[in-house]
Amino acid sequence: MPTTLIQGGTVISATGKGAADVLIEDGKIAAVLAPGAKTLGENLAENVDSTIDATGKYVIPGGIDAHTHMQMPFGGTEASDTFETGTRAAAWGGTTSIVDFAVQKYGEQVVDSLADWHDKAAGQCAVDYGFHQIIGDVNADSLAAMDGLMDEGVSSFKLFMAYPGVFYSDDAQIYKAMRKAADTGLLSMMHAENGPAIDAMVGELLAQGKTDPYYHGVARAWQMEEEATHRAIMLANLTNAPLYVVHVSAKQAVEQLAAARDVGQNVFGETCPQYLYMSLEDQLGAPGFEGAKWVCSTPLRSKHEHHQEGIWQALRTNDIQTVATDHCPFCFKGQKELGIGDFSKIPNGIGSVEHRMDLMYQGVVTGEITLERWVELTSTTPARMFGMYGKKGVIAPGADGDIVIYDPNGHTSIGLNKTHHMNMDHSAWEGFEVDGHVDTVISRGKVLIDNGEYLGKKGHGEFIKRQACQYLV
Amino acid sequence: MPTTLIQGGTVISATGKGAADVLIEDGKIAAVLAPGAKTLGENLAENVDSTIDATGKYVIPGGIDAHTHMQMPFGGTEASDTFETGTRAAAWGGTTSIVDFAVQKYGEQVVDSLADWHDKAAGQCAVDYGFHQIIGDVNADSLAAMDGLMDEGVSSFKLFMAYPGVFYSDDAQIYKAMRKAADTGLLSMMHAENGPAIDAMVGELLAQGKTDPYYHGVARAWQMEEEATHRAIMLANLTNAPLYVVHVSAKQAVEQLAAARDVGQNVFGETCPQYLYMSLEDQLGAPGFEGAKWVCSTPLRSKHEHHQEGIWQALRTNDIQTVATDHCPFCFKGQKELGIGDFSKIPNGIGSVEHRMDLMYQGVVTGEITLERWVELTSTTPARMFGMYGKKGVIAPGADGDIVIYDPNGHTSIGLNKTHHMNMDHSAWEGFEVDGHVDTVISRGKVLIDNGEYLGKKGHGEFIKRQACQYLV
Amino acid sequence: MPTTLIQGGTVISATGKGAADVLIEDGKIAAVLAPGAKTLGENLAENVDSTIDATGKYVIPGGIDAHTHMQMPFGGTEASDTFETGTRAAAWGGTTSIVDFAVQKYGEQVVDSLADWHDKAAGQCAVDYGFHQIIGDVNADSLAAMDGLMDEGVSSFKLFMAYPGVFYSDDAQIYKAMRKAADTGLLSMMHAENGPAIDAMVGELLAQGKTDPYYHGVARAWQMEEEATHRAIMLANLTNAPLYVVHVSAKQAVEQLAAARDVGQNVFGETCPQYLYMSLEDQLGAPGFEGAKWVCSTPLRSKHEHHQEGIWQALRTNDIQTVATDHCPFCFKGQKELGIGDFSKIPNGIGSVEHRMDLMYQGVVTGEITLERWVELTSTTPARMFGMYGKKGVIAPGADGDIVIYDPNGHTSIGLNKTHHMNMDHSAWEGFEVDGHVDTVISRGKVLIDNGEYLGKKGHGEFIKRQACQYLV
Amino acid sequence: MPTTLIQGGTVISATGKGAADVLIEDGKIAAVLAPGAKTLGENLAENVDSTIDATGKYVIPGGIDAHTHMQMPFGGTEASDTFETGTRAAAWGGTTSIVDFAVQKYGEQVVDSLADWHDKAAGQCAVDYGFHQIIGDVNADSLAAMDGLMDEGVSSFKLFMAYPGVFYSDDAQIYKAMRKAADTGLLSMMHAENGPAIDAMVGELLAQGKTDPYYHGVARAWQMEEEATHRAIMLANLTNAPLYVVHVSAKQAVEQLAAARDVGQNVFGETCPQYLYMSLEDQLGAPGFEGAKWVCSTPLRSKHEHHQEGIWQALRTNDIQTVATDHCPFCFKGQKELGIGDFSKIPNGIGSVEHRMDLMYQGVVTGEITLERWVELTSTTPARMFGMYGKKGVIAPGADGDIVIYDPNGHTSIGLNKTHHMNMDHSAWEGFEVDGHVDTVISRGKVLIDNGEYLGKKGHGEFIKRQACQYLV
Repeated sequence: MPTTLIQGGTVISATGKGAADVLIEDGKIAAVLAPGAKTLGENLAENVDSTIDATGKYVIPGGIDAHTHMQMPFGGTEASDTFETGTRAAAWGGTTSIVDFAVQKYGEQVVDSLADWHDKAAGQCAVDYGFHQIIGDVNADSLAAMDGLMDEGVSSFKLFMAYPGVFYSDDAQIYKAMRKAADTGLLSMMHAENGPAIDAMVGELLAQGKTDPYYHGVARAWQMEEEATHRAIMLANLTNAPLYVVHVSAKQAVEQLAAARDVGQNVFGETCPQYLYMSLEDQLGAPGFEGAKWVCSTPLRSKHEHHQEGIWQALRTNDIQTVATDHCPFCFKGQKELGIGDFSKIPNGIGSVEHRMDLMYQGVVTGEITLERWVELTSTTPARMFGMYGKKGVIAPGADGDIVIYDPNGHTSIGLNKTHHMNMDHSAWEGFEVDGHVDTVISRGKVLIDNGEYLGKKGHGEFIKRQACQYLV
Repeated sequence: MPTTLIQGGTVISATGKGAADVLIEDGKIAAVLAPGAKTLGENLAENVDSTIDATGKYVIPGGIDAHTHMQMPFGGTEASDTFETGTRAAAWGGTTSIVDFAVQKYGEQVVDSLADWHDKAAGQCAVDYGFHQIIGDVNADSLAAMDGLMDEGVSSFKLFMAYPGVFYSDDAQIYKAMRKAADTGLLSMMHAENGPAIDAMVGELLAQGKTDPYYHGVARAWQMEEEATHRAIMLANLTNAPLYVVHVSAKQAVEQLAAARDVGQNVFGETCPQYLYMSLEDQLGAPGFEGAKWVCSTPLRSKHEHHQEGIWQALRTNDIQTVATDHCPFCFKGQKELGIGDFSKIPNGIGSVEHRMDLMYQGVVTGEITLERWVELTSTTPARMFGMYGKKGVIAPGADGDIVIYDPNGHTSIGLNKTHHMNMDHSAWEGFEVDGHVDTVISRGKVLIDNGEYLGKKGHGEFIKRQACQYLV
Repeated sequence: MPTTLIQGGTVISATGKGAADVLIEDGKIAAVLAPGAKTLGENLAENVDSTIDATGKYVIPGGIDAHTHMQMPFGGTEASDTFETGTRAAAWGGTTSIVDFAVQKYGEQVVDSLADWHDKAAGQCAVDYGFHQIIGDVNADSLAAMDGLMDEGVSSFKLFMAYPGVFYSDDAQIYKAMRKAADTGLLSMMHAENGPAIDAMVGELLAQGKTDPYYHGVARAWQMEEEATHRAIMLANLTNAPLYVVHVSAKQAVEQLAAARDVGQNVFGETCPQYLYMSLEDQLGAPGFEGAKWVCSTPLRSKHEHHQEGIWQALRTNDIQTVATDHCPFCFKGQKELGIGDFSKIPNGIGSVEHRMDLMYQGVVTGEITLERWVELTSTTPARMFGMYGKKGVIAPGADGDIVIYDPNGHTSIGLNKTHHMNMDHSAWEGFEVDGHVDTVISRGKVLIDNGEYLGKKGHGEFIKRQACQYLV
Repeated sequence: MPTTLIQGGTVISATGKGAADVLIEDGKIAAVLAPGAKTLGENLAENVDSTIDATGKYVIPGGIDAHTHMQMPFGGTEASDTFETGTRAAAWGGTTSIVDFAVQKYGEQVVDSLADWHDKAAGQCAVDYGFHQIIGDVNADSLAAMDGLMDEGVSSFKLFMAYPGVFYSDDAQIYKAMRKAADTGLLSMMHAENGPAIDAMVGELLAQGKTDPYYHGVARAWQMEEEATHRAIMLANLTNAPLYVVHVSAKQAVEQLAAARDVGQNVFGETCPQYLYMSLEDQLGAPGFEGAKWVCSTPLRSKHEHHQEGIWQALRTNDIQTVATDHCPFCFKGQKELGIGDFSKIPNGIGSVEHRMDLMYQGVVTGEITLERWVELTSTTPARMFGMYGKKGVIAPGADGDIVIYDPNGHTSIGLNKTHHMNMDHSAWEGFEVDGHVDTVISRGKVLIDNGEYLGKKGHGEFIKRQACQYLV
């Protein structure tokens, strides 16, 4: 495999930045060097197969999107990105690793579902991928199957407090699964919304003729996210299980996480770009059925309640530790349209896997977060959280050669007819502008994206066998 | 200057660890390399002047003790360590940078005091040193002088809410200094205890004949630390100044810091090893006058109130970000003895500069903190907090070659007649045992300590011109 | 009906105390008079049918126990006190009103259940009684039936978050019932424990052979009370329903109530004497099967966790507003014994209806609460909370002549062979000593207890048609 | 003295309401009677000297304004109401008791100052009056003098954390005075604003040419009220002294009170009508110098920060327990005008003693508080708080015949040319409309106000010798 030297850039880590060159050998980082280091560097450029000039640019560890749903079955249809199209779009956006979800449904075996997802992804991916395990049916079999997950490199599983009749676990099931998590070292991930109460409210609203997408946001009130978050925390407290709450959107849910973290409980939170930039009124409340594009759960929240400010703040205070996308794309035609006349039938999901690194960089531009925090939120912490650090999430000797060269003087216009490579007939992010640009994307030493061209190939991406969460060791 | 290659060790950073070799050239880190990196590494050991075998050991950035008081005048005497003896002791303990305090007293000019401290330290130090500026007399002159501090590389200043008549600032003075801090970008450090109320209580106790060292801890009640911490936070809130509270010892003070941090205020906290291991009852309450050895302010607190547990927890939750020593040694004979019959006359201070890295490593052994957190608390965060990161606090290309090789299989017995190199006639830490050992200490590429021998020399240490706090950029 | 004058006592109200005589006419209070009031009082004693000398004693409004379960079916048996025996015991203890629970079970109609309970109580009671409605099966029928409850004088209903398969409501049911509560003005009462998780833990413990009564307390962990309390609060917040949480025993549940109250939510809490005096270790953990006497839910909690102190404090801070008994007596022989070898089969309940006024007075003696607060907690607030104030809960003109004359110089020894009139073969309170004594008990002008003699009769007690909670007007 | 019977009204107490007649004999309440009570009532009206028909009206205990400053020296002038004019205005507004402040200044003796104030008030007052003692100079003498205050019927004293150079106590002085309070049972009242920091900010603003009344509100930032409130709480915590914080206006200060109360500390708070109805923008920010009318400390606060809502909420949650006026009137001409060109020279104070009962009743009309709470906040709790309950604050046998007959169908237009009887050349309340009316005011059985006429006389009012705070017994 060829050697590559990235020269002249500024390497950003979670703790700081500095001028450094990066040498990649056999797909791994062989060295990080001071520019002009005499003992090594004098003829180094001549000794490598290729050099990349990163002058004036940021050199960062490849993005890790720890929450995606490629070709996910949901509500009678399937997420529109396959592992092939979705991971290619990820590559375009500077994300070199995803962690997707294998789905065990009611009546299925965990082992079978994991095998299925391996089948779906193997040989298809542009970037590396791992799996969390969704346990949609906590029972004696699935609890027993949890014993084997760590060895499979699947060190985390997800439960749902929402979606009764689909993925929902009741509190007895959550209790049992968390006990098992405490025993096995698996990380419990939680969709924290009170599904039964929300569904009762959905019924009320529909009965009142309130069928527009806007009411999706009304029904999924912040109180029911806050409540479920608190409940998950207390069940975790009781069982001594670590907890990671996905897609936090309500500032009050953040307060619950913060309170638990303040007293030292192993509780973590994730948010998604949509909760930082979008609202109930401006997107979900778009005229007619247009708002369906932004139907996702947890929902976009009211801008009058200052949730966006609360979530940005939590990214600074570290009460939320990671930003993932919950990428779950559906086309408007034929998919989102399933919910015309009944918002509860709109497939839930927004496609963002391609834009996360850019959207979060824009937070650096606007002063919401620092450069270091950008790298930490999008790469280093996801790696540590999900047991990949060392291999992923850092530019350090021995790590995979997953690197993004980001141009702070570039510009990115997001949208369907512009840069979008996701398999969707619309973009939830149409019109967003970013004052930076993903120039070059390298995965295990292989250049996937350069100069506006996709140089990767299907099947380059490998399964990531993950270790236990590295915050708990 | 000779080149050095540290081979075979495990490099620990604030975010993780991995096998890596470190090359030092001209006193700076030239490269961090994967062991056996082909392009570079095959003959590397032959091309350097010296190699150090770190097999089985941890390779960490040199410790930074951001709170020391060498030859500090206090209560009619002077701290017993000079810059020469104190920094040498620091080196023995794996600390390669200190930040000491220049002291402006009532009636003095800030510029003069800083010049004095430069005079005291120049040519004397075994390791690098910086200065914070104590402003003991906030007035028009000293406020004006603050404008020049950043350019002097003194990016932080300290005020005292305690010690009326000595260093005390009233709230009007604090308000004015913090306003100036907000304008200049200086970091406000605060000794947060309500001095006037404490002194009133001291008076009460002495009048009751309660003169033993134990009553030092009674008088300086946790309520008065909590109160002052809250007051400092609100003054910082009003003036928009960042705040760093030194030597936090009360868990209730931590709660105040945590609450402010939860809402995004730039508030930071420091603790010291004594608050993690010692108590009012077990040390301050030692029979007779023995407790004088442990008279420091904030004081050791009651073990029945769970402060130690609270402070350890805060180190995990990041509600406290740094561990410094507040090293301020006084001999028992002739110094501590000044307070026989009146605890308020005992010079305040404990000597710990030599033991901080070991004592905190013991927290790794006992499971209180992770290896990564050890490095973060003792080196990386102090560097970021005080504007030195990049040069200090990290093993990365371009950084100073400040490195400690720490043996997790070694052992250290602390005490006066054993390993102690501080200029004190007793040790506050007599009898503490640590399951690890500082093997080799390197400062800007120069080996200061190796194999139980001091190889450094007076005057090696240079002044560190610091930048602004890197958490605020 | 005869007139009665109570002379010479100190009348205690919720806000203060003073020397006053009380005149009862036609069963109602006709006047409260200054002793020796000239215009009225000179010959007053001669104009009444009887006088009672209360010199040196407290004259207080009759106790109201707002939480009893007479002849309640539970776990295949039935609470051992009938309305006859239970209300007679209440009278002995200075309680002149109870509010019991009509129980709608799965598959039953609310209206039928209420009629059943009227049948059980009518003509049987020694003191006045009202009903709350338990809704054990929230469905379209029971929701519709709630519309009629206020007119029936049943202004409150109770749901259970515990006991899946028995009384348990899931969150959708709670949501719907609370919506109805907000519409109808009914007060929602909640048994707040996470039943599904607790039952899962019960299963674990039994599977481990942990079958003793002690494990009843282990399984019903405080986390699951705290959690359910928070959940109930958030569902109440979402639906705008007022909430009253019954039998609070965990200090962390109190903290949830306090937090909601601090922001102005209509949330109330009740505790019971056992949570103020008894613990997991000292009672539930009694040797062998003895602990079964103290099996109740919520359970007695660990004395090492300071719940008793927390509950007493909440009585002072008004974060808990009422003290009821949750009187639900079972005999040891044949009833409690159902759970030998399996703590989960022990009928839940303690008998205390006779001792509440005394046990709470002891809190006055020990300085935990004031005299005024004693009256407020045991009579005035229950009256206001449950829509009886004016008629009950106060010594004021127009109110029912329900009065207790309490001797602060008397003494009461509690226990089976001593003063106990409940239909139980043991006393959970055996050996408790109280520094006061219920001397005389009057209900609607009729003396029920005097001089250690029961002068009442079955059927004196009338149904109390209650109004809406008077805290919400 | 004549006997009086008030017939037909609805008596309101702090806990409820009911139809009742009230008999007054010898200036005291002789009986509260059920209308038509047979044994007593048949010929009662014929046996009294006069009857008052209260049909359709509320009969409430006379208002108690626990915070007034009649003829108070301040800033080189004196409050414009004398004890004569001020207490007459109080009577007009349904307030039958005031507690004013005797002022010890620097260098004066406490005993002398109290004697002075007795001289000022004796023979002048229309209604009863008590004194708190301001201790403006905490020193050995004044501390010693505190020992005698309780016997003088002065059971409370006030310190200032504001006004350095005038009334200011530093934290050592507060500590000492609170210790004394804990010993003597006196209640510590606190003006909680950080004076030194505020004065520094005042200096800044004036130096910037910001001299309008508006900047009075800017300078006295909520942070400095919150801070001082917390500080007072912690000093009270340390010294075990009960604490009553006067004129709370910042919602964040309320949060500090609430937090302390939640953990059981004896901490109380008072607010004033201006903080419920007025704001920085609408009143203090009036054009030109007009805003001077509303200069008071603590100041009116920004309506954009939701303090009014926070204070109303605190009145409901009982985190604030009393409403007083801080009546301290100054004329515009010649008094307020002292501050033209320098807001810091405007005498601080608003005149409201006449309007408190009406303004708070308006909160009943708008649904902010209940009728019962109105009585509790304005009469019953002030009586209990300041050791007058039994004599004042309740309609019960033995209490003083201080009664207001309030017409809920009446109307009151507030303003200078309308109903105003205070000695001021303007009204801070000009234009406020109240949907109720003070019809009749009775003080110790004597009708002071009836049918729009003043029937009282100078010197009727007597000194109230107060007991200790009744919340602490």
